[in-house]
Amino acid sequence: MAKSYRFDGAADLSQVLENGMPIYPGDAVPSFEPYSTLKKNGVNLTRLVLGSHTGTHVDAPIHFIEGGVSVDAMPPGAFIGEAVVVDVSSREPGTGIVPDDLRAQVEARAVPGDIVVLFTGCSRRWGDPSLNSNYTYLTGEAAEYLASRRVRAVGIDFLSVEKFGAKVPVAHRALLGHGVFIVESLGKGVEAFIDSRFLLICLPIKLAHGDGAPCRAIAVPIDQD
Amino acid sequence: MAKSYRFDGAADLSQVLENGMPIYPGDAVPSFEPYSTLKKNGVNLTRLVLGSHTGTHVDAPIHFIEGGVSVDAMPPGAFIGEAVVVDVSSREPGTGIVPDDLRAQVEARAVPGDIVVLFTGCSRRWGDPSLNSNYTYLTGEAAEYLASRRVRAVGIDFLSVEKFGAKVPVAHRALLGHGVFIVESLGKGVEAFIDSRFLLICLPIKLAHGDGAPCRAIAVPIDQD
Repeated sequence: MAKSYRFDGAADLSQVLENGMPIYPGDAVPSFEPYSTLKKNGVNLTRLVLGSHTGTHVDAPIHFIEGGVSVDAMPPGAFIGEAVVVDVSSREPGTGIVPDDLRAQVEARAVPGDIVVLFTGCSRRWGDPSLNSNYTYLTGEAAEYLASRRVRAVGIDFLSVEKFGAKVPVAHRALLGHGVFIVESLGKGVEAFIDSRFLLICLPIKLAHGDGAPCRAIAVPIDQD
Repeated sequence: MAKSYRFDGAADLSQVLENGMPIYPGDAVPSFEPYSTLKKNGVNLTRLVLGSHTGTHVDAPIHFIEGGVSVDAMPPGAFIGEAVVVDVSSREPGTGIVPDDLRAQVEARAVPGDIVVLFTGCSRRWGDPSLNSNYTYLTGEAAEYLASRRVRAVGIDFLSVEKFGAKVPVAHRALLGHGVFIVESLGKGVEAFIDSRFLLICLPIKLAHGDGAPCRAIAVPIDQD
């Protein structure tokens, strides 16, 4: 059974980079400033200031793991993989996803090498500042469980997989320590893919020694011929 | 005849984002600064300052066309297409590509909807400052010719498709004015694809109202089954 990818039907899973956008509290404050315009200067140009973890982005192992690989050193094909969305939106924001929230859905639908995207529902409230330090996160046990399933990557539809303000980054360590990269701040568009298998492309810009980097994440529908 | 894409064999066509990297003279000067480290702070984080046209990037129509579309408003599938490389490396840097340099190769290998990548050879000398204001460019006539072939996009392996310091952006206007987007500062890796047809993925980060934006550009080999 041949597969084909419907690139022209790709859905955007990325957050817009704009002034005032939500960021993980304490991170570098982004700014996007048009410094040359068609009217005044004959060309539109923009200056961008942002953090390596601003907006939709990839976390590379070196973000938290000494000696870990950086975004520029990973093979680019690593950032393309089939994906499934696990719906954990029944959890209250501020609480932690445990293995029992994942097992039935993961075991029914995900295979080794897949990207597992967690839909917490927090993305529906992107821009609501009360959520920026009180979002649904992944417990260390649930992160260990996902790593044990040999997934390629774990995505989430809000600022971080980690409990806000965690003293020990247990979820990041469990995933990145097993070479499972992370995609954070995916957009609310992931909800539409809860029942689908799709191709997720999330290529980060090539930041030298990058602990992470912004990416444009998209979902490409898969047709079975 | 079914096609399959060998994502795990993807080649990187992107330049590394790093301090001191080549930029179009006069553009915003980029800087990449680790402001938190594992050793000192328990986490690696980087602050990025860059222009919308720093490193490998996409130009959207609004870069030069009043009322043109911006990178965030283009459908993401637009940034994925089959591509061919046209070898114009016999041209001396500082001279302009004319239609006769393109016709035989384009007519033999490119079809409407393709991305045509110009290999000028200047990418072999990325980092040589003498080239930053003296690279091989696209004349207005050659840009008009490519637009008339209804290509999806035009890529080039150096800082700009435009003659350095041009008073009138004839190449940009001919392409962007026909809705043909541009990918600039592709890496020297394009040379390896001179005889191949491949899938080019060049998704720019989602900059609000972006006149352009950095992208990670990769070449995915196509297998014919």
